[in-house]
Amino acid sequence: MIIDVHGHYTTAPKALETWRNRQIAGITDPGVAPRASDLRISDDEIRETIETNQLAQMRARGTDLTIFSPRASFMAHHIGDFAVSSAWAAVCNELCFRVSRLFPEHFVPAAMLPQSPGVAPETCIPELERCVRDYGAVAVNLSPDPSGGHWTAPPLTDRHWYPLYEKLVEHELPAMIHVSTSCNPCFHTTGAHYINADTTAFMQLVQGDLFKDFPALRFVIPHGGGAAPYHWGRYRGLAQELKKPPLQEHLLKNVLFDTCVYHQPGIDLLTRVVPIENILFASEMIGAVRGVDPQTGHNYDDTKRYIQASEQLGPAQRAQIYEGNARRVYPRLDAALRKKGQ
Amino acid sequence: MIIDVHGHYTTAPKALETWRNRQIAGITDPGVAPRASDLRISDDEIRETIETNQLAQMRARGTDLTIFSPRASFMAHHIGDFAVSSAWAAVCNELCFRVSRLFPEHFVPAAMLPQSPGVAPETCIPELERCVRDYGAVAVNLSPDPSGGHWTAPPLTDRHWYPLYEKLVEHELPAMIHVSTSCNPCFHTTGAHYINADTTAFMQLVQGDLFKDFPALRFVIPHGGGAAPYHWGRYRGLAQELKKPPLQEHLLKNVLFDTCVYHQPGIDLLTRVVPIENILFASEMIGAVRGVDPQTGHNYDDTKRYIQASEQLGPAQRAQIYEGNARRVYPRLDAALRKKGQ
Repeated sequence: MIIDVHGHYTTAPKALETWRNRQIAGITDPGVAPRASDLRISDDEIRETIETNQLAQMRARGTDLTIFSPRASFMAHHIGDFAVSSAWAAVCNELCFRVSRLFPEHFVPAAMLPQSPGVAPETCIPELERCVRDYGAVAVNLSPDPSGGHWTAPPLTDRHWYPLYEKLVEHELPAMIHVSTSCNPCFHTTGAHYINADTTAFMQLVQGDLFKDFPALRFVIPHGGGAAPYHWGRYRGLAQELKKPPLQEHLLKNVLFDTCVYHQPGIDLLTRVVPIENILFASEMIGAVRGVDPQTGHNYDDTKRYIQASEQLGPAQRAQIYEGNARRVYPRLDAALRKKGQ
Repeated sequence: MIIDVHGHYTTAPKALETWRNRQIAGITDPGVAPRASDLRISDDEIRETIETNQLAQMRARGTDLTIFSPRASFMAHHIGDFAVSSAWAAVCNELCFRVSRLFPEHFVPAAMLPQSPGVAPETCIPELERCVRDYGAVAVNLSPDPSGGHWTAPPLTDRHWYPLYEKLVEHELPAMIHVSTSCNPCFHTTGAHYINADTTAFMQLVQGDLFKDFPALRFVIPHGGGAAPYHWGRYRGLAQELKKPPLQEHLLKNVLFDTCVYHQPGIDLLTRVVPIENILFASEMIGAVRGVDPQTGHNYDDTKRYIQASEQLGPAQRAQIYEGNARRVYPRLDAALRKKGQ
């Protein structure tokens, strides 16, 4: 089985965006604010957006199951207050749940959290627990920067985040560390902010001792870990200067990287530098880079091709990246699959 | 000849830091503010700090010449106003000049600019021209974020920066895009802020069309280009989505990457992905990562070893990375060397 741990519902029906625009208008003009029940999307509409997009690509590429969360760039936690984020997360999470119910063989939900700048992370716990209980969510996306590019929240190692981490551990949920849209003109959302956030989060973890307090907590750093694997020597050296244990011992029991790196040399570096047990197959399809690479004739984000072509990997290692690691890191996914005899 | 395009005077005599601390105290208590002439550092003291540190390492590693600028993390443009930055840049640049005069075979100065948050970049021109005229500076360091981690300046492609670019072109000075210390607790200075700034700058250039307006402008993106080479497929794909020409045509006549990547797989990726003519040898020694890599028994930042060991490079390509590219990209350096018959 090939499990893609990083997919977003980037192709949701237009009605979702219309609802969101009304919600945003409602921040200044409460008369136009919509209720959750004003969002009407039929099962057929959902089927159509998935079958012609994500599922079509999964079939073409030969991947089986996607851990599916709301569109990352649309989370936009910086818009409005906690109530706004809360209502928005609820409708987005419900849609991903509906996708998973319509295509139970192919999609499993991960939850977006109703984060809001300056608001305590524990306010996200009710939505998190609702998604686990009612929707079967197997993971969450956690933004280290709900401000959208101004970086006003404390580092991930700060006790600020601990109440949320306690719940993640309690429910055996890994967190993908994933920012949303950038509202800082310095940072292109998918070309700078996403990658910087990955690098930033990794270095925060190098500096801290978070996993001493939460040995069972698991963080997935997406987009191949930002710059971390490319600068692995730098990070090993910085950990050494900071008198931390080697990265393997300090972080790699808890930190995983996905394979959203869109060319062969990048994947080759990742698989050469990072232990195989820390690599999770992912494509973030359909996402930031939708085009066809003229050098290969295939989609940039068809990351399975790079894993297949990597000369450093044998069949056992590919199986680990495609399935074994995901089943270990996402225990709720593993349990759900076992229940179905998979 | 082996030219290291990225060295900072990180080992300056203690008196410099003492002077700076008095200068900072003087911001709130003008009575204690020092004059430039209060900084007394003898030639012997400078000789000592260089001979036992940078020069000793250069001899041990077999590199010949370093383009030498003030300590990057100490630039701290966010402290005080333009007058503070201006006085600080002046003393730091003079010290690097003195190093180059004491060791003319081994060091050539590059200038720090007196940037200050919210202040127009053209205010840096007098110091820039002084460093070229009086000190023989062959390049400048330009920070895209004088705020120190809050990213309040416009992107590098904004006309905000154009008056400075005109002077860079006029004097044939490449700019190394290099931030200073981070005062945002989210960003570790050398582990996150530096690398993020490199990535951010590269993506700003992908988004814009700066080199249409300045075809002769040259930017060096340090630390191996941040995350850019590792995510080269992503950036090729994003340029494509943004309807830009291929990166080679869009940026690579003007954008160079240095080799400050502190392990073999990183250098192998860089030399595999980026055209050889866009790679400049550098180590940033003595800098962020000073330790010995237990995996190799050598300093992490002894980047010459990785270039030597790279199987993808032949002697002609190594010569380009070590010398040829630097002489092309730093015309004032080339002219100075030719004058000496080198």
